[in-house]
Amino acid sequence: MSTVDSTLTSFIDIASDSDFSIHNLPYGIFSNTADGKRRAGVAIGEQVLDLAVIEAAGLLSLDGGPYFDKPTLNAFIDSGRDNWTQARKTIQMLLSSDNDALRDNQDLQKKALFQQADVTMHLPVQVPGFTDFYSSKEHATNVGTMFRDPSNALLPNWTEMPVGYNGRASTVVVSGTDIVRPSGQLKPNADDRPIFSACKRLDFELETAFVVGKGNDIGQPIAVDEAFDHIFGMVLLNDWSARDIQKWEYVPLGPFNAKTFASEVSPWIVTMDALAPFKTACPTQEPKPLAYLDEKATDNSFDINLSVELLPEDNDSATVVCETNFKYMYWSMAQQLTHHTITGCKVEVGDMMGSGTISGPTPDSYGSMLEITWNATKPVTLTGGATRSFIEDGDTVIMKGYSEKDGIRVGFGEVRGKVLPAIQFNFDK
Amino acid sequence: MSTVDSTLTSFIDIASDSDFSIHNLPYGIFSNTADGKRRAGVAIGEQVLDLAVIEAAGLLSLDGGPYFDKPTLNAFIDSGRDNWTQARKTIQMLLSSDNDALRDNQDLQKKALFQQADVTMHLPVQVPGFTDFYSSKEHATNVGTMFRDPSNALLPNWTEMPVGYNGRASTVVVSGTDIVRPSGQLKPNADDRPIFSACKRLDFELETAFVVGKGNDIGQPIAVDEAFDHIFGMVLLNDWSARDIQKWEYVPLGPFNAKTFASEVSPWIVTMDALAPFKTACPTQEPKPLAYLDEKATDNSFDINLSVELLPEDNDSATVVCETNFKYMYWSMAQQLTHHTITGCKVEVGDMMGSGTISGPTPDSYGSMLEITWNATKPVTLTGGATRSFIEDGDTVIMKGYSEKDGIRVGFGEVRGKVLPAIQFNFDK
Repeated sequence: MSTVDSTLTSFIDIASDSDFSIHNLPYGIFSNTADGKRRAGVAIGEQVLDLAVIEAAGLLSLDGGPYFDKPTLNAFIDSGRDNWTQARKTIQMLLSSDNDALRDNQDLQKKALFQQADVTMHLPVQVPGFTDFYSSKEHATNVGTMFRDPSNALLPNWTEMPVGYNGRASTVVVSGTDIVRPSGQLKPNADDRPIFSACKRLDFELETAFVVGKGNDIGQPIAVDEAFDHIFGMVLLNDWSARDIQKWEYVPLGPFNAKTFASEVSPWIVTMDALAPFKTACPTQEPKPLAYLDEKATDNSFDINLSVELLPEDNDSATVVCETNFKYMYWSMAQQLTHHTITGCKVEVGDMMGSGTISGPTPDSYGSMLEITWNATKPVTLTGGATRSFIEDGDTVIMKGYSEKDGIRVGFGEVRGKVLPAIQFNFDK
Repeated sequence: MSTVDSTLTSFIDIASDSDFSIHNLPYGIFSNTADGKRRAGVAIGEQVLDLAVIEAAGLLSLDGGPYFDKPTLNAFIDSGRDNWTQARKTIQMLLSSDNDALRDNQDLQKKALFQQADVTMHLPVQVPGFTDFYSSKEHATNVGTMFRDPSNALLPNWTEMPVGYNGRASTVVVSGTDIVRPSGQLKPNADDRPIFSACKRLDFELETAFVVGKGNDIGQPIAVDEAFDHIFGMVLLNDWSARDIQKWEYVPLGPFNAKTFASEVSPWIVTMDALAPFKTACPTQEPKPLAYLDEKATDNSFDINLSVELLPEDNDSATVVCETNFKYMYWSMAQQLTHHTITGCKVEVGDMMGSGTISGPTPDSYGSMLEITWNATKPVTLTGGATRSFIEDGDTVIMKGYSEKDGIRVGFGEVRGKVLPAIQFNFDK
């Protein structure tokens, strides 16, 4: 990874606490015209740079292009690391104070720069596959303590492999998508039959997801020391969960309806190049992983501050209910990707791989309401006095994330979703 | 559904035991040229009718077309039921003895008809999502008896919902694809740590899968009495499974690496229109399902004969190890699809939904080696004297399926996969 020039500045006015400094340059897909035409952009301060316009103007020429006048980033990502590097270098140069190509061209600026507040963001990639891991030891321990056995909370396979399961790619949605409260089978009383009902224990899960940038052939696992090169970038992920549906359905084949109604992601993909200055080590892995999971690299994680806020409909101010950090994750993204492919499973460009709920060591760093309220036994009090055990209709859940070091800030923006009331069903025939 | 004219004959010579009678007309994607160009065809007897050629000749004009000079069937399927009906009617007419358009045009026949033996079949659809259900009561009972509690083999949720889980769409492969024996974590000894090894208990699962023909919007469940209209057709599915990997990994989030290395399907999609004459009832459901799963229709299943053959590499003749029937499935495809979408989960055209292993009531009708050999305690003897507990390197697994009634036969052909030895890994650094 290249070293970072912290003296680099942009001719665009960027607040010092902006997630979107010139060191970040995350990619997204946006539209701002009546026809809703989607194209690629990069976030810079409070603006978005239209890469389709920049490319058409001849200022961003990549091998095999054009790539940016398209409704997803898949083709650009699939074009490979050389292009990722070239694009980042070129865009950073175009936005820098020292370069006049865009700085002194007011016409081009009018065509290529928009306020983020004026555009609509879309899913940045077409997502062929969505996988969710379960790689926070604190989260797995909390769940095991609550639902299985406090003295034996972690299952024996947990410290041996990054446990994961297949999610549903069709319902990966972008930040800002309203979430209809799901309905399904619940079993409130152990002795009675289940009932059909709206979910009563709707929860968020604070996660990140990485975006696969390079796939593999079926039957050809990705070696753990090469896995990092297969990752393009990261997003924030709210893996919406219906705890009561989950509890009744998940044995023996795992969560299904409890998770497949929506997995909401932030719109900007922060690249691994932008995150490189914030590398850090995963927690010590004991026992030492089996050879196929044993990474040479020790700086295989990232220092990313994460938070969750709750905003009830009738309230002006959100309440922070969780502050944690990605660095608590026990298993690295490289280990996750290698484990995913070790049997020969194929992964594809645009696949998203969720981290699993990211909980830290203390109750104020737990990444789900299930843990924060300890299964509704300790409701949280919000600004204004309302309390919450789980998420109620009208509530908006906002997740944020950023890295900061030596005066450089690289952030994700947010993933924000509001819960709408459940559908009223009528099964009369 | 239209009634069937059993007197209908084709000018093409079709054996009486052919799966591909004029009453069937299943859709597939094939290539037979050096450039590997893929296009749509219909199987008829031992031949395939090139629909791209027929369409270009002006003999198959559908609203919104052309549809068939494409590498997948998704666009045709997505064009809707009216086109499905029109295409079937037109193709059946073109192939009938009474119609001269193709019968008397030798030039067109040369361009449009190929021997199946001379073409390569491909995946018929691009598969956005793959879901696997677990809807055979006999299979779930057998597994529960072996691994949990014989006196309480079925878990309590099993009779209340069609239990299912998300699979991996990227590794749905077409019949004829060789399967590399997967490697991963096994735990042979309860007291020791797991080991990294090639799978020692490789198994098949005899299944069918239905292909979604009409999706839904996120947040909008598909009502059970409308679900059948969302299904385009069916294929055979061998859901390859690594039992030893599965056993160690699957608690608590379900099967993952044990299943994601390959799910192999037959190349021809048999339409629900072709299967209509073979409708039959599901087994009685007790307790009566909750209202959202309570179907009006009683002929919600199909009488489809299914079999599995094993062919060792050094043997000339395959041995039938299972004969069963789709009609044993407890939950209907309509119930599966409704349950899948009840929380608002979106399904898409081309999605495949596996039935789960289809086991019948007797040991010779069990749909996996796990059940047939009762977890390797009763190995099967093959023609020639070899025995098998699970699938060995070089073995080919062949699944077949057909319906037959009143002189009409509608079959699936086969799904066939051969097992190759595991990769030799070297983790020295």
